[in-house]
Amino acid sequence: MNFEGLLEAAHNVVRSLSRPWDDRLNVILRYCVDHGAFPKIGRLSPEGEDLPTYLKLYITRYYGAREQRLEFRAVGTTPDPAVDVILQAFIGLSDLSVVSEHHRQSMAAENLLGLLLERYIAEQLEPQGWVWCAGNTVRSVDFLSGDLSTALQVKNRDNSENSSSSAIRQGTSIKKWHRINSKTGKTNWPSFPVK
Amino acid sequence: MNFEGLLEAAHNVVRSLSRPWDDRLNVILRYCVDHGAFPKIGRLSPEGEDLPTYLKLYITRYYGAREQRLEFRAVGTTPDPAVDVILQAFIGLSDLSVVSEHHRQSMAAENLLGLLLERYIAEQLEPQGWVWCAGNTVRSVDFLSGDLSTALQVKNRDNSENSSSSAIRQGTSIKKWHRINSKTGKTNWPSFPVK
Repeated sequence: MNFEGLLEAAHNVVRSLSRPWDDRLNVILRYCVDHGAFPKIGRLSPEGEDLPTYLKLYITRYYGAREQRLEFRAVGTTPDPAVDVILQAFIGLSDLSVVSEHHRQSMAAENLLGLLLERYIAEQLEPQGWVWCAGNTVRSVDFLSGDLSTALQVKNRDNSENSSSSAIRQGTSIKKWHRINSKTGKTNWPSFPVK
Repeated sequence: MNFEGLLEAAHNVVRSLSRPWDDRLNVILRYCVDHGAFPKIGRLSPEGEDLPTYLKLYITRYYGAREQRLEFRAVGTTPDPAVDVILQAFIGLSDLSVVSEHHRQSMAAENLLGLLLERYIAEQLEPQGWVWCAGNTVRSVDFLSGDLSTALQVKNRDNSENSSSSAIRQGTSIKKWHRINSKTGKTNWPSFPVK
């Protein structure tokens, strides 16, 4: 993909959305072009026919994440009744709707925690010249150093991904850091890869 | 990798463990060789120096999973205190240790549910000539048709994996099925891909 052409198309989209251009997009788009790291959005990819539509969704996502006011948001899934059957049969729990509600509130809190963590780190790193890839604009990368020498993925816990999800980093130079160890409960701030 | 050589090495390992040979391993090993689908075990892979050690772990895993008696097993992780902070700050919960315990019991039940589902399906499919890839012996595959024409991955819910984990199936012909839809709560048994 031609970077200059893409950049021009992105500028056009930003203008059409009546936004000021955000210079951090230069870093993000450059990395995505160089590393083939554009995410799919729905079924769209930047190599498809309809680059303007892709870029409009992409840019909207980026600005949207930067402006989003975080809130506690209930999980959007339905409880699985098979979980209740197991809780009753194996450990004799009876107050199953309360248990389920607590589980769902905790999952919602974990989701929010991931978002808060990302924003907290963004607040710390961006004044040092890093770029937050807001809105999942770079596949498997949350932060880029301004000179593009380092790509960083941040997770809350060491067990936030399984072997399949970590496989996507194979053969890349993406650094990974997690906040907390799921076994010991120890946090990992001292080893944060940016000083 | 040479299939005949591998098969002989596997036979030797099974003998050294004083086990009878399980013919389903022929199917599993054939698929792994043909599709490069051997999982890593710790840091070991079958291409490494130490094939006998790899195979010993691999075969032990396979027989172990087949013989394992499932039980309700508490999750092995430590609660993250940041979750408590969020539950208190955003939705004013106070009985945080109870909430956390319910969350952990529910996660343990979900883990067990995945194992029970896999075994239930194995019980249904194996009499029809399918092979259960017990003990994660095939990367991203849970069941193989005996003629190796179909590989199947089974999940409990449609949201049991993220985009990174599903990426590992790209370019493969692995079929995926999930039991329950996380949004609607509807189960998917009518569309199970084996009749």
